[in-house]
This record gives sequence, C-alpha cells and structure tokens, in this order.
Amino acid sequence: MNNKIKNIKKLIVKDSLELDCGKLIKNFSIAYETYGTLNKNKSNAILVFHALTGDQFVTNINPVTNREGWWATAVGPGKAIDTNKYFIICSNVLAGCMGSFGPGEINPETNELFGTTFPIITIKDMVKAQIYLLKYLGIEKLLSVAGGSMGGMQVLQFSSLYPDKTYSAIPIACSASHSAQNIALNELGRQAIMADPNWNKGNYFKTDLSPNKGLAVARMAAHITYLSKKGLQEKFGRKLQEKGSLKFSFDADFQIESYLRYQGSNFVDRFDANSYLYITRAMDYFDLEKQFNGNLSLAFKNTKTKFCVISFSSDWLYPTAENKEIVIALNACGANVSFVEVNSDKGHDSFLLNVPEFLKTLSEFLNSIYNEVSNEKRI
Amino acid sequence: MNNKIKNIKKLIVKDSLELDCGKLIKNFSIAYETYGTLNKNKSNAILVFHALTGDQFVTNINPVTNREGWWATAVGPGKAIDTNKYFIICSNVLAGCMGSFGPGEINPETNELFGTTFPIITIKDMVKAQIYLLKYLGIEKLLSVAGGSMGGMQVLQFSSLYPDKTYSAIPIACSASHSAQNIALNELGRQAIMADPNWNKGNYFKTDLSPNKGLAVARMAAHITYLSKKGLQEKFGRKLQEKGSLKFSFDADFQIESYLRYQGSNFVDRFDANSYLYITRAMDYFDLEKQFNGNLSLAFKNTKTKFCVISFSSDWLYPTAENKEIVIALNACGANVSFVEVNSDKGHDSFLLNVPEFLKTLSEFLNSIYNEVSNEKRI
Repeated sequence: MNNKIKNIKKLIVKDSLELDCGKLIKNFSIAYETYGTLNKNKSNAILVFHALTGDQFVTNINPVTNREGWWATAVGPGKAIDTNKYFIICSNVLAGCMGSFGPGEINPETNELFGTTFPIITIKDMVKAQIYLLKYLGIEKLLSVAGGSMGGMQVLQFSSLYPDKTYSAIPIACSASHSAQNIALNELGRQAIMADPNWNKGNYFKTDLSPNKGLAVARMAAHITYLSKKGLQEKFGRKLQEKGSLKFSFDADFQIESYLRYQGSNFVDRFDANSYLYITRAMDYFDLEKQFNGNLSLAFKNTKTKFCVISFSSDWLYPTAENKEIVIALNACGANVSFVEVNSDKGHDSFLLNVPEFLKTLSEFLNSIYNEVSNEKRI
Repeated sequence: MNNKIKNIKKLIVKDSLELDCGKLIKNFSIAYETYGTLNKNKSNAILVFHALTGDQFVTNINPVTNREGWWATAVGPGKAIDTNKYFIICSNVLAGCMGSFGPGEINPETNELFGTTFPIITIKDMVKAQIYLLKYLGIEKLLSVAGGSMGGMQVLQFSSLYPDKTYSAIPIACSASHSAQNIALNELGRQAIMADPNWNKGNYFKTDLSPNKGLAVARMAAHITYLSKKGLQEKFGRKLQEKGSLKFSFDADFQIESYLRYQGSNFVDRFDANSYLYITRAMDYFDLEKQFNGNLSLAFKNTKTKFCVISFSSDWLYPTAENKEIVIALNACGANVSFVEVNSDKGHDSFLLNVPEFLKTLSEFLNSIYNEVSNEKRI
C-alpha cells in the first residue's frame, strides 16, 4: 500500500502554517485528486471535503484500495455532482493516511515516523491547509464546497473563514459543534484502539504488529452509529447466518454479527489507527459556535455565500435538530439558506448511498448556482 | 472478592435442568437475596429480575462491592417496592458472576473453571432455574414479577411459561425479541472483550492477567447506550475537565471522556468478562415471538396475570415502540394490561434512577394488585 501511496498526486506546501495547537508546520504534503475539467474562467470548481474515514478518491476506482470511491453515488458523469460539468477537487485531510501530512509520515526533525508526536489537528487546520491547494490550482472562487459528516464541518468552517472564496456551500448531515454523545462515541473508538497492546502508545510502526483488533472494534462501534435502528431491523432483523437453528456458541449466529465483523476486519486494511485517533479528535474539538463566543450566527456575518443544508430523517448521529441549528444561525444573520430534511431509513450513511431525494436536491441546488454564476460571468 | 462471594446465600439445586442448548445441568447454585418478610399466606412475594450487569443485591449495601444495591431507588422501606409490605426475592442469573452457576465456577467433570466450556444460557434457562428458588421458599404464587431491560425479558418469559405462578407482571424498558441494533451493540461488546489478548479464549483464569481493557471498552460502549443524547448533552455537553482551553492531546479533555473512562475502569472490579459474553448472548437469543411461531399473543394465551408495561420516552435501546408491541400482543389475547410511557430524558437508565412518575406507577400498580389479592385471600 505504501508504494501505491507514493505514486499519488501531492502538493508540497513550502509555506508555514500555524496550527490551532500553536505548532508551525512547513513543507507538508497535501494529497489530492481532481475530476472533470476546469473551465476557462475557472468558475466550475467544487471542493469536496471527506468524512472521518474518507480520502481524496471521491469517485472511480480508488487506486490504493481498488474499491469504488466513497462518493461514487453522487460524483461522476451525469451524476448529481456532474464531472462533465464541474471540476471536482478533493484532498486527503491533514492527519489522514492517504498521502497527506499525518502521523504515519516521517518527522524531519527526528527522521522517525511521527506516531503520537504528531501535532493535534483541528477542522480549522484541515480547512486552512486546503487553501494552498486552491492557490496552486489557480482557483480564486469556488462554485461550491460540499461534504457530509466531518466533511460538512469543513464546509461550515470554510464558509466562515473564507466567505468570498465560494459562491455556495452544502453542509450535509453535520453539526456546528460536536455533541456529548458524539464525543463519547469517538472516545469509545479511541479507547478501543489504545486498549490494543499492539498500539504500543502509537509506536506500532516500530514493531511488526498493528493494533488491528482495536481498530476493528472502533470501526464496528462507529458503523453501528452510521445506520438507523429501523434500517438495521429491515436489512438484518434476526436473520441467521445459517438457516435453521441457533449454534449456541459465540460464533456469528446472526447476519448482523458477520456483517459487523466484516466491516471491522475490512477497515484495518485501508486505515491507520493513529490517523483514526487524530481525526476523531479533530471532530471532537470542532465547535464553530465557540469560535464566535457562543453566537453561531456571527460565524456567517455578512456572508454572500448561498447555503443548502441537508439532513436525513433517520440520522441519529447528526440529527435534523443539529442541522437546523445551522439553518437558524444562517437565518439570524440574513444569509441565503435553503434546508432539506431528506426522508430516509438509512441513517447517517444516507449521504453516501443512492438516496434519490438527496441526490436530486444536491444536483438541482448546484445547477441553479452554476446557472447563476454563469450568467453573472457573462455580464 | 471470591471469599466474599463464598459467604453469600446460595441454593444448591440437586435436580437436573435441561438447558435450551440441550445440555443437562445438576447440582447447580443459585445465589439469591431476600428483603422484607413473607406474610403468613405467602401472598406478598415479588420476584425481581436483574439486568445484564446486575445481581441479587437489589437494595441496601451490596456486601461484595460495598456499593448501594442496583435498585435502591425503587426497593426499600416506604419505597415503590416497599420492603415493609412486600417480600422481595432476587437471584443472580445463570451465567452470572455473583455466586450463581456461571463460567467462573468449577466444572466438576474437569475440576477446572468452565470458562468458555460453560454452556450457552438463554433467558428461558435463567427463568426456569429461578423456579427452584420459589419452590425452596415455599411460594406457590407471586404477587408480582418485575424487572427492567434483561430483567423485563425475564418477566415476559416467566409470565409466558408460568401464567399461574404470578398475579401480576411488570416488564420495564424491554422487548419481546432483541433487535438487530441491540444484537449489534452486544456483539460490539463481545468483540471488544475477545480482542483483548488477556482474554486468552476465555482461559484468563489460568494466567495472572484479566481482559480488563477489553471489558472496560465493552462497558463504555454499553454505557453510552444507556443514556439519551439529550441527557448526555444536558449533563456533559462540551464541558471541559479543566477550565480554560483544550489540551491538544489524547488525555480526557471533556468531562464526558473522564466519565466514560471511569465507568469502564470501575466496572472491571465487579464483573467477569466471560459472564459478560454469556449474558449478552442470552439477550441476543431472546425471541419470545419465535417461541410461538411468530405470534407473540400466543405467548400469553388465556393468561390471568395482570400486566403493567412501562417504557421511557428517551430510551433508544428499548424504545417505546418495542414495549408497545408487547402491549399489542397482550391486548390481542384479551389480557389485562396497562401501559405507561414515562417522560424522562434519562434514557434507558431511567428505570434505575429516581424518576418520580415511574416510581409512582410502580408503587400504585403493586398496591392495587396487593389490595386485590388480599381481598381475594380473605374471601
């Protein structure tokens, strides 16, 4: 996998970036991917932000994992985020494990892998780093920024920090500050990783062992939260792995058990345990409201960006109520905002799945912004 | 702790009991406790069933853990389940770790601790075992059977198996069959335990090591599910451990993190990892509907037992909808059933807490049954 990562597209940022934790980083890498073609007046670019376990490979086949990109349902020719029409950019977040500056990189000061000596990263740091990529690509103003879950947090942070750098913003299934329950769930994942003796205080790269069992448990826990109770009941219910009677053992009797075990073991092949710690920490630290002394609407003061906030009815991780708080804050500062709660039984995962109402909302909102911006440019 | 367990009250059942898995057990122990005084005509006895991590020490100080009994809010002199009035019985379930026949006991055939050679236990097995205790205590018919969560499952199973052995039944915050989400959450806990190398395929008693880290992670996961999103937000929100700014580390920054870590580390002192595996398995296997070929109302056919089903509005583990299915089935067979959804932000844990509406419901239902039975006995 490492060799494959070496061959992926990277921007090396020479500048210094001061992180929220106070540390300066420089000569750091941002691994990225683009899809579609940038038009002449560079007005059709959309910056997509990935979620906790995503990466820059939004669509097509991910060359590292050989699996389909994480947002292939939404991004591609003729799809909601149409690669025939738009130029899509996505980069691996800081602290990620798909080529961007992260805990699995070598610390030039020690010539050893960072591990847990890597600095704590915030959502703001992630967003700031991506500005270098836009500069490099020569894009002054994006058509849109879009993302779900942690991607949505980046959308909010970007829109707040750089109101003039995007015509529109689509925060999906997210929150302006991480709730106690979500911090608890992330902490559970971290504790599962840290409980694995192979984690070795983050120095597993010094041994031949990896904290795969702990990381798999963290993934299983997270995966349960991505699905709704109703969705799980409809898909799995109490269906048995093997028809007939129970095994009276601790083997996977129920299909839901095998499914979870598969999700766990599958994940460890493509994700790094330390990255999981760092990225969940960034999510927990996210509190846009606090950045503006408890008044979220100040985060968007005088913004001209047009927002489309999307939530899903069965998402209990980032429920509609938390998405509505964003809408309320945007309304309070007179921003242009539309809001759709999409009916779906598929829980938080809905934004990654083929949910027609959602994809139509995405497509039509982007289309209207595109037409508006195109007309403006003609004038 | 083991010495303390040796001194607790136990009934040794000489009879053979055939378990659902097909195995026969005999000479098995049932550790139990009683509170209050059995009246002359033995009509004031209430059998309380404990939940996953409970035990026979319902109220007062648990002599093994030196902590307050798990249902001290509800059981005691003048309380909803009034020990001045009723005779309360509670036993540690089969597969438990507080003195009853469980995986931490010695297998007489091998003279070694059972570990995972212990047979898989079901809710039905647990209930059947407790009948021996009633026989021993000379109680032909109980005033009531009551319990929350897995305790509620035992209430349902008991009422179905022995309709003539109780005047009333109070299933609280439970379900007639474990949902896919709940199986998933239990499987997560089991995987966390099994991922701990100290678990050693269940043979940790052969070493000096215990799978405490894995068991703590399982407890943390479960604990999150016992509380509601709103309750967590109100109690913890984003409150920091130390006032001021974030630590930019993986230490417990947020109070919810310390709280969870405490819940995890505290739990391993009083609970056995193998028992956790066995008892969660029993919950997953529980499917009263399936016992009656998919028709839950047949489980209660011709019953004269009076039911009081209680759910909590913010319980997402055993939501009101699942409790209502029990009510619907009871109505379908013409049973006498009352149903209360108690408003509470405290989630599934509400049944263990001081929730006045709940305790009043419990107290008044029991009181009316008591008066009725007393009048009947006088006639």
